[in-house]
Amino acid sequence: MSVHVVRYETAHPGDTSDLSEQLAAFPANRMRKVALLAKTEGNSDVNDFSRQYGMLSARLALLAHGGEKLVERSSFLFSTGCEGAMTPFGYLFVDLDDEGAPAASGEALVFGRARSRSLRSEEIGTPQHSDIVAETVKAAMTDAGVGQDEVGLAIVKTPVTSHIPAIAKKKAGNKRITSAFSKAVGALGAGVALGEVDRAMVVQEAFDRDHTLHARRAIVFSGSELDCVEILLLANKRGAAGNLRVHAGHLVDLLDAEGIRRVLAEAGCRIESCAVADPDRVVAILLKVGLDPSGALRGSRTTMRTSHLDTDKHLRATMSGIIGSIVGTTHAFISANTVHQTAPGGGICAFIVRQG
Amino acid sequence: MSVHVVRYETAHPGDTSDLSEQLAAFPANRMRKVALLAKTEGNSDVNDFSRQYGMLSARLALLAHGGEKLVERSSFLFSTGCEGAMTPFGYLFVDLDDEGAPAASGEALVFGRARSRSLRSEEIGTPQHSDIVAETVKAAMTDAGVGQDEVGLAIVKTPVTSHIPAIAKKKAGNKRITSAFSKAVGALGAGVALGEVDRAMVVQEAFDRDHTLHARRAIVFSGSELDCVEILLLANKRGAAGNLRVHAGHLVDLLDAEGIRRVLAEAGCRIESCAVADPDRVVAILLKVGLDPSGALRGSRTTMRTSHLDTDKHLRATMSGIIGSIVGTTHAFISANTVHQTAPGGGICAFIVRQG
Amino acid sequence: MSVHVVRYETAHPGDTSDLSEQLAAFPANRMRKVALLAKTEGNSDVNDFSRQYGMLSARLALLAHGGEKLVERSSFLFSTGCEGAMTPFGYLFVDLDDEGAPAASGEALVFGRARSRSLRSEEIGTPQHSDIVAETVKAAMTDAGVGQDEVGLAIVKTPVTSHIPAIAKKKAGNKRITSAFSKAVGALGAGVALGEVDRAMVVQEAFDRDHTLHARRAIVFSGSELDCVEILLLANKRGAAGNLRVHAGHLVDLLDAEGIRRVLAEAGCRIESCAVADPDRVVAILLKVGLDPSGALRGSRTTMRTSHLDTDKHLRATMSGIIGSIVGTTHAFISANTVHQTAPGGGICAFIVRQG
Amino acid sequence: MSVHVVRYETAHPGDTSDLSEQLAAFPANRMRKVALLAKTEGNSDVNDFSRQYGMLSARLALLAHGGEKLVERSSFLFSTGCEGAMTPFGYLFVDLDDEGAPAASGEALVFGRARSRSLRSEEIGTPQHSDIVAETVKAAMTDAGVGQDEVGLAIVKTPVTSHIPAIAKKKAGNKRITSAFSKAVGALGAGVALGEVDRAMVVQEAFDRDHTLHARRAIVFSGSELDCVEILLLANKRGAAGNLRVHAGHLVDLLDAEGIRRVLAEAGCRIESCAVADPDRVVAILLKVGLDPSGALRGSRTTMRTSHLDTDKHLRATMSGIIGSIVGTTHAFISANTVHQTAPGGGICAFIVRQG
Repeated sequence: MSVHVVRYETAHPGDTSDLSEQLAAFPANRMRKVALLAKTEGNSDVNDFSRQYGMLSARLALLAHGGEKLVERSSFLFSTGCEGAMTPFGYLFVDLDDEGAPAASGEALVFGRARSRSLRSEEIGTPQHSDIVAETVKAAMTDAGVGQDEVGLAIVKTPVTSHIPAIAKKKAGNKRITSAFSKAVGALGAGVALGEVDRAMVVQEAFDRDHTLHARRAIVFSGSELDCVEILLLANKRGAAGNLRVHAGHLVDLLDAEGIRRVLAEAGCRIESCAVADPDRVVAILLKVGLDPSGALRGSRTTMRTSHLDTDKHLRATMSGIIGSIVGTTHAFISANTVHQTAPGGGICAFIVRQG
Repeated sequence: MSVHVVRYETAHPGDTSDLSEQLAAFPANRMRKVALLAKTEGNSDVNDFSRQYGMLSARLALLAHGGEKLVERSSFLFSTGCEGAMTPFGYLFVDLDDEGAPAASGEALVFGRARSRSLRSEEIGTPQHSDIVAETVKAAMTDAGVGQDEVGLAIVKTPVTSHIPAIAKKKAGNKRITSAFSKAVGALGAGVALGEVDRAMVVQEAFDRDHTLHARRAIVFSGSELDCVEILLLANKRGAAGNLRVHAGHLVDLLDAEGIRRVLAEAGCRIESCAVADPDRVVAILLKVGLDPSGALRGSRTTMRTSHLDTDKHLRATMSGIIGSIVGTTHAFISANTVHQTAPGGGICAFIVRQG
Repeated sequence: MSVHVVRYETAHPGDTSDLSEQLAAFPANRMRKVALLAKTEGNSDVNDFSRQYGMLSARLALLAHGGEKLVERSSFLFSTGCEGAMTPFGYLFVDLDDEGAPAASGEALVFGRARSRSLRSEEIGTPQHSDIVAETVKAAMTDAGVGQDEVGLAIVKTPVTSHIPAIAKKKAGNKRITSAFSKAVGALGAGVALGEVDRAMVVQEAFDRDHTLHARRAIVFSGSELDCVEILLLANKRGAAGNLRVHAGHLVDLLDAEGIRRVLAEAGCRIESCAVADPDRVVAILLKVGLDPSGALRGSRTTMRTSHLDTDKHLRATMSGIIGSIVGTTHAFISANTVHQTAPGGGICAFIVRQG
Repeated sequence: MSVHVVRYETAHPGDTSDLSEQLAAFPANRMRKVALLAKTEGNSDVNDFSRQYGMLSARLALLAHGGEKLVERSSFLFSTGCEGAMTPFGYLFVDLDDEGAPAASGEALVFGRARSRSLRSEEIGTPQHSDIVAETVKAAMTDAGVGQDEVGLAIVKTPVTSHIPAIAKKKAGNKRITSAFSKAVGALGAGVALGEVDRAMVVQEAFDRDHTLHARRAIVFSGSELDCVEILLLANKRGAAGNLRVHAGHLVDLLDAEGIRRVLAEAGCRIESCAVADPDRVVAILLKVGLDPSGALRGSRTTMRTSHLDTDKHLRATMSGIIGSIVGTTHAFISANTVHQTAPGGGICAFIVRQG
């Protein structure tokens, strides 16, 4: 068994021609599990359905490759927003049953998948929701066969209540749970599972308030199309086959290019002239970036929280320049909002690097 | 006589409180000329009038400080769009009559202003328009008292025809001149004046077509509120007083962080850990960034030319991250579209640096 | 003394050429008071400063016409958003000292102006805020010399807290007051002053909650640039000079064209073939339109509350078609959000009509 | 054989639950042909893929109902943009093989489908393209078994070249064909087929220039995902079964409510108090609305061609109010841009009405 991470291109969110071509390299019956982590160029405004379109299209491609059974062994994490120096694309993660594969000398990349039961509307946004995230992260650790210390990054998808005010009120007892709030709840749950956050601190009052409380190896997404929690967990397992490893680290703020270089170096990359000298070894780039609630950066006001563009668009585009200038690529999975995932205004970056 | 460059903050485009405070340091009767180069947080979509609002407000502030006479000695270059890691702000350039000021040992910053006659609608977008730009750049050189080789950067503002189709057709003989086209015409005119472009090449067919043809020390803006050409010219003059100098250089593409560091080093800054070690000496930061007409960057597609956001918004936000991570500031005047100002997809950066 | 209402055109928000021309007809020393009610084509997104630009420009035009004294006797109510079949324009209201003017046989249009003291941040959004609106409406009634039953329409402008989260929190004690909430507070205050709402019902819990509670002759605007309450009150005064009258009425919902025709007929217009037969007598058109909090209309879902466009843009454009098809004009002052101004989802229309 | 037209609701573009429920009423083997005409709430900005998502989802629903064979007998016309008083929804057209169905006394609704071969890039936007549209309209007439005079409305879908500049240049020989231009070409082709436009006038120079030239019973859509021409033709056939009829007519301009009432009356509806008295008989509402190229309406400027919102959004929302106030519904298929489909600035409305 060994894990493969392949990048595939998309001409548009419904384009699965390259995905299908990449899938062809893997016999369906030997694919133990699959995960897709993809970015669409959907405009990321209200009533952009490109994520749903991309997911449906990818599902049909997997169905064509390995039938309903393969789809059941697959996770789909799609995200919109490719502003700035970003190319829409996807990462295909395959856990392949290749018995002969030589074990890594030390550790190698594995991944785990898990999915919770459906949440009831009144649970969303509460400590119970957070507990369900924690349980699902643990289930993904079990699925990956790893312990807390082996986890590189937990990718969490968590439900929000409807964006239609009247429905949301009915669903959540007069309280609408925003995407940011759902992420807050999800992050603390993941932090508990990873031993980074004390369960006793995870109370209703803490969500999106006490920003000093945060996980360290989780990034969180929310989706209104979802009523359960989904986890994709990346870990480095001792004795696993393959020569990939995941490494994650935190950034002080949006402009912390030096932090990115530090994490890349820790992940085993060589930095020359302020950039990665061996970019082909960087198999996957994941970034979550945030902004202080005040909207200020390096002590000065910005308009990122007070403009007609969603804060996340500003953040993604800004980071696309920094990461692009360091790794020399427009293929990076950049997402925004780091509530309870880092200190306020901080960021997380994770790299999957082919070991030399 | 010496040139002062002061940064002023704005709480909104109509806020001139800090500008007025900064002006108070300069006796109006000793201000030989003034230029304002400012960025507003206007949303930069159609029917954003923040630039006009900012200019009117600044005009009233100068009027209050030195009367109509001072306004006549002043240039106003306002630009919208502060996406990403950018703070809305302005640079106040003052050429002060301070006889006692010691001459610089070598060269020091001076600036020149010039304004053309009103263009007729049928001239806009033609080689005549380009010639008028060239003449106006030369007039600004004369105003600054410098020759071609002393010029650091020519900042050009050039008119477009109305954005209202019916009016534009009437004005320009069935042909609407876009902002990009007007910039193209302006850039080549400036290039001729600076000895960088051969006048014989500046024919109607070349505009926005032959992108190999370009100036080297000009950045161009367009405005529909304008019917003439305006120039603000920055130069380093031998024997001038003061310890400021301007230095400009080109970037290969949007992600050329190494190019920025090179220009900063050439301008006299010290680079440590990939960033400017003495940022307080960087008095002004000017950037113009572009994208290949194909929309691709580093060989991959981006959505910067095919999204609901204007290309320029993508470009500005992306660059804000790069420059911010190098100079450690959100105060940079970043603008987009480098047609005929660099090779396709390239950029220009200019820094005014206090000499050590 | 008689009241004149003149429509003026604007080529852009800063254009006051037609306003100045219209002003020229009125000797400044005989202008007892002035009000401008104008719509700009600013894009009405965050960081659209066209309203502020329009107000500053109009202020300068009045200053040029009658000096600071005239400006002090003037009210400025500017609003953005001219979507759909709407022309940007303004209404100039002048109360002229023309002693010889013959009194109307019955009633004629007068207007009153009033402005409150500055509100403290912690007052905004509270019953005190509402009380200040009530007092200011009463002051405007006194200024107009009319009683409750003579009031046609109270136009209320009310402050909101800053849209910058960090500042808003400081200003309003951890609670950000939205534009909608400020309008709610303003509407109930106006309703109390007009004898339409029981003061005892105006408690913190009622704001934007108990939508059955509403005024009947008030339309409310909010502005973040404002820290006080401003009122422009239109009334029909017995014995006043002139042949204008104001008449207001309610609409059941956004599609209530029949309600508009009813109010027009009540205002003295002749309706033929479902449209106004004598549109020249309609001197001013004011509309406030709303939508049920659920976002549904006539029992079906719409996307007006769940789209990338602000609800108000949908509402204004939709109404522009209806009113335009009835009065045959694109010159209508249409605004959205009728919280506490009508029953949920209802609208208000008011017409100033020259009596036959 | 008889034609059924059924409205189905959608909770989002991918929701086919109501469509599937409606399909269940029709045995797949007796469905001779099917057409879907649907509106999604996609935000209609660049990189909105809701139309493609809706089409893929509907295709899967038809596949589930009747297999690939049924899909081959089906047409899919999806359009985005539900601004204003509009509900996202679809019309399902079924031509059912029900031998026993009694023939109409006079005429009854039938529909025809046709699809052209793939166009070569260099053909798009040329008279050949127009000829292909004409041929395809004729093929649809044949499919419906009707002659020119029986046609009620031809719904045309026509390809555009890529919106990616570099690709478009390659595809169309240095010339990008816009959506508006493709519609122009399509409209004239349809006009030729319907005997409304003289083929001799359909020359390259006429497209989107000579606006006096126009069809009378065609509405045209364009799509970049398409490389062929698709036609859905609605006609009233003598002797056909069923009690539905289609009736179309022109509007003078966007505010022509009286024109709508006239066409409704001609279609057999009863108008009372300016509205349709028997709205349940109006089975389908189709509108195409336009604006004079100058952007003016009733002699006054509007911002519909000079705003940050696409002209079509203004037009759709404005018309939603007018049609909604007349028919009392938010379920109308409203589309914009009537180039060569009416006189400049005019509109087309078509109604399918159940005969009394």
